[in-house]
Amino acid sequence: MKKIVNVGIIGFGTVGSGVAKILLSKGKLLEQRSGISLCIKKICDKDFRRKRPVNVPKSLLTKNINDILNDRSIDIVVELMGGIHPAKEVVANAIANGKHVVTANKALLANHGREIFDAAHKKNVFIGFEASVGGGIPIIKALREGLIANKVNAIYGIVNGTSNFVLTRMMDDDLSFSQALRLAQDKGLAERNPRLDIEGIDSAHKLAILALLGFGVNAKPKNIYTEGIKNIDLADIQYGKKWGYALKLLAIAKLVGGKLELRVHPTFIPSRHILANVTGEDNAIFIKGDLIGEALLFGKGAGSFPAASAVISDLVDISRNVDEFSRKVKAEKVYFSGNVKGIEKIENLNTRYYCRLLAIDKPGVLAKISSVFAKKEISIANAYQIERKRGQAVPIVLMTHEAREGSIRRAMEEINKLSFIAKKTVCIRIER
Amino acid sequence: MKKIVNVGIIGFGTVGSGVAKILLSKGKLLEQRSGISLCIKKICDKDFRRKRPVNVPKSLLTKNINDILNDRSIDIVVELMGGIHPAKEVVANAIANGKHVVTANKALLANHGREIFDAAHKKNVFIGFEASVGGGIPIIKALREGLIANKVNAIYGIVNGTSNFVLTRMMDDDLSFSQALRLAQDKGLAERNPRLDIEGIDSAHKLAILALLGFGVNAKPKNIYTEGIKNIDLADIQYGKKWGYALKLLAIAKLVGGKLELRVHPTFIPSRHILANVTGEDNAIFIKGDLIGEALLFGKGAGSFPAASAVISDLVDISRNVDEFSRKVKAEKVYFSGNVKGIEKIENLNTRYYCRLLAIDKPGVLAKISSVFAKKEISIANAYQIERKRGQAVPIVLMTHEAREGSIRRAMEEINKLSFIAKKTVCIRIER
Repeated sequence: MKKIVNVGIIGFGTVGSGVAKILLSKGKLLEQRSGISLCIKKICDKDFRRKRPVNVPKSLLTKNINDILNDRSIDIVVELMGGIHPAKEVVANAIANGKHVVTANKALLANHGREIFDAAHKKNVFIGFEASVGGGIPIIKALREGLIANKVNAIYGIVNGTSNFVLTRMMDDDLSFSQALRLAQDKGLAERNPRLDIEGIDSAHKLAILALLGFGVNAKPKNIYTEGIKNIDLADIQYGKKWGYALKLLAIAKLVGGKLELRVHPTFIPSRHILANVTGEDNAIFIKGDLIGEALLFGKGAGSFPAASAVISDLVDISRNVDEFSRKVKAEKVYFSGNVKGIEKIENLNTRYYCRLLAIDKPGVLAKISSVFAKKEISIANAYQIERKRGQAVPIVLMTHEAREGSIRRAMEEINKLSFIAKKTVCIRIER
Repeated sequence: MKKIVNVGIIGFGTVGSGVAKILLSKGKLLEQRSGISLCIKKICDKDFRRKRPVNVPKSLLTKNINDILNDRSIDIVVELMGGIHPAKEVVANAIANGKHVVTANKALLANHGREIFDAAHKKNVFIGFEASVGGGIPIIKALREGLIANKVNAIYGIVNGTSNFVLTRMMDDDLSFSQALRLAQDKGLAERNPRLDIEGIDSAHKLAILALLGFGVNAKPKNIYTEGIKNIDLADIQYGKKWGYALKLLAIAKLVGGKLELRVHPTFIPSRHILANVTGEDNAIFIKGDLIGEALLFGKGAGSFPAASAVISDLVDISRNVDEFSRKVKAEKVYFSGNVKGIEKIENLNTRYYCRLLAIDKPGVLAKISSVFAKKEISIANAYQIERKRGQAVPIVLMTHEAREGSIRRAMEEINKLSFIAKKTVCIRIER
């Protein structure tokens, strides 16, 4: 006996048409594998004139969202509109109407995840959001189910494919940032307005969702320290590479002394680190747990089919709990408050730093710089003056031992004021 | 209202004591996260004199397996005895008694997986076996649930931590095979009798399980081409490294022309390949699916707590379906037969090869070798004679373009018979 579950899709764009295509073409396979027949009841969008890569019977299409929200036969609403409004209201409405919800909307969940999860729990409906982080990578499932016995100590990785593509092209092909970005745009990997990706905002959204799941911390994106890649200079990537480091935009959530570090920024990692070999548009996320040690999940972080793969996995999981006769299965809480004592200030971060100074080449320069660092109790691991051009500005690259971010910032302020410093110093954090 | 699920553990060794320790110490956490109270009803072993890293009330211990199998209050049997007999009979008995089963037993599932899964499906009980492949890595869950919408095209990776540790130490520290193996034994990473690990048998077991899940192919280990690492010479690792390759013991399941390649063997991969950075005892498994492209899961492949983490994830998943009043939830089929037209013969493999010949250094040697390759339609991509010692045996290393394994084998037979060849030629497959 097969179970029929009715689905309404709201938003018929890249991911929505991928979901429709798979449900229509792979329905038999899914039914064989899960015993569930996922039936598209309605698809809603503002505009159906644009050509989609899937042929859908006209009778399924509607421009009226209420055709889905008020259809009592629809069990699960798939929200793929993106953006916060009106997606938030649509999801709230679906939940209020007792419908399960699957969404890929990271901006929505990053900003309003907790209230949505709470509302769903109260209404005893399930929320699936595998596609909101890491595209087709089953990272949400791993965190919620596969690693359920673990106390999570850290979650970190590459969660934005566009930035990773740009940094990879800079590192491998010696392109400038703007050249690499243009290439990404030509390939359709970056939007015309690439702000969300290159300024780290998209990564911060995903980190907020992971922080809620892994640590029970309701960190809105605005509370996450976020630095993008748009000011990255090719020279720094090249120097780093020379000394065995790769530059990656990392999203990091790490428990330190009971508080949660939450930060998104360009980071140097050793070139033998697994994340260093995560290139192009790929994503990869590490989870550190008390039982498993370190685990990593890697894959395509975006794209129609990877995201649709995640949406359908959610649909099947939820359908297993949809009972036509009763609703016996209790929808579980999505997140659990841990004992985290709040979000740590970025000033209290302790890590190593790469600094590139541009200084007039004259005797005593390094001594002066070193003394500023020493005063702030920052110890220098190594320093290189790249070339000699007496009387002219030359780059000096140095790496510190572990130091406090606050100290580094104050040291930089002082150093940037020194008469022989020709340009604002570049600082990049290093992780092991 | 919390749900109480009773568990019987059979086998109180490394993993069994890890499971008991976590259930006793993290019961509250698991209950908070899942709403389920996992209660150890009995623990069975032959011998309780050995000291375990967990204190268990004496009343829970039994030497009589029937105290678990016949206890009607026990919902889930955790089989952690290892080995095929009597584990097979124990599992069959548990299923026959209507109990769900969680097992970490890869040898058992590799050899009798299909019949066990079929028996369980018929009895409508669940089988959890996350810990049987990849330790704490949620690879089974990813394959069965997270990627349910995907047609799987390939599964490959490093699934034996012991061999990977040995190869890593050879590559990084220039140790010989026997030195590296001794180190692994000293660290408790290899058994006194390391046969299962270093001969690739353990990897073949895991590959058989993955092949059944991913492709519906019931490949017993004896049908899997298996080559271990015990004959690997440090020289080959060093030559490979010089030309940008890392040597890994890979387990590979790959659909090619409708047939399934199934093979375990030492493999050169480019040093920028993600698997090249999977070092030490770590495991990592790639899954290629039609929707997600390539995904990878990485983590600790063995150890008490990683394996116990997987066992507990299975316990929670199954418990969600344990209903105290009725058994409404239908246990799903574990595997699905695809359209695979059988297992491909190793002779039909097409890949690139690394060959190291030991040949007397005299004019015409390379010409003769090349002509043997040419006759078998194998084209040589590059060849190096490492040193010159006129009249003495010197190594010649060459790499082929893609060639058929059968041709390579026949070429090797001919070459090894040549008068100037001093030793049997070494051949190692290369994957990209």
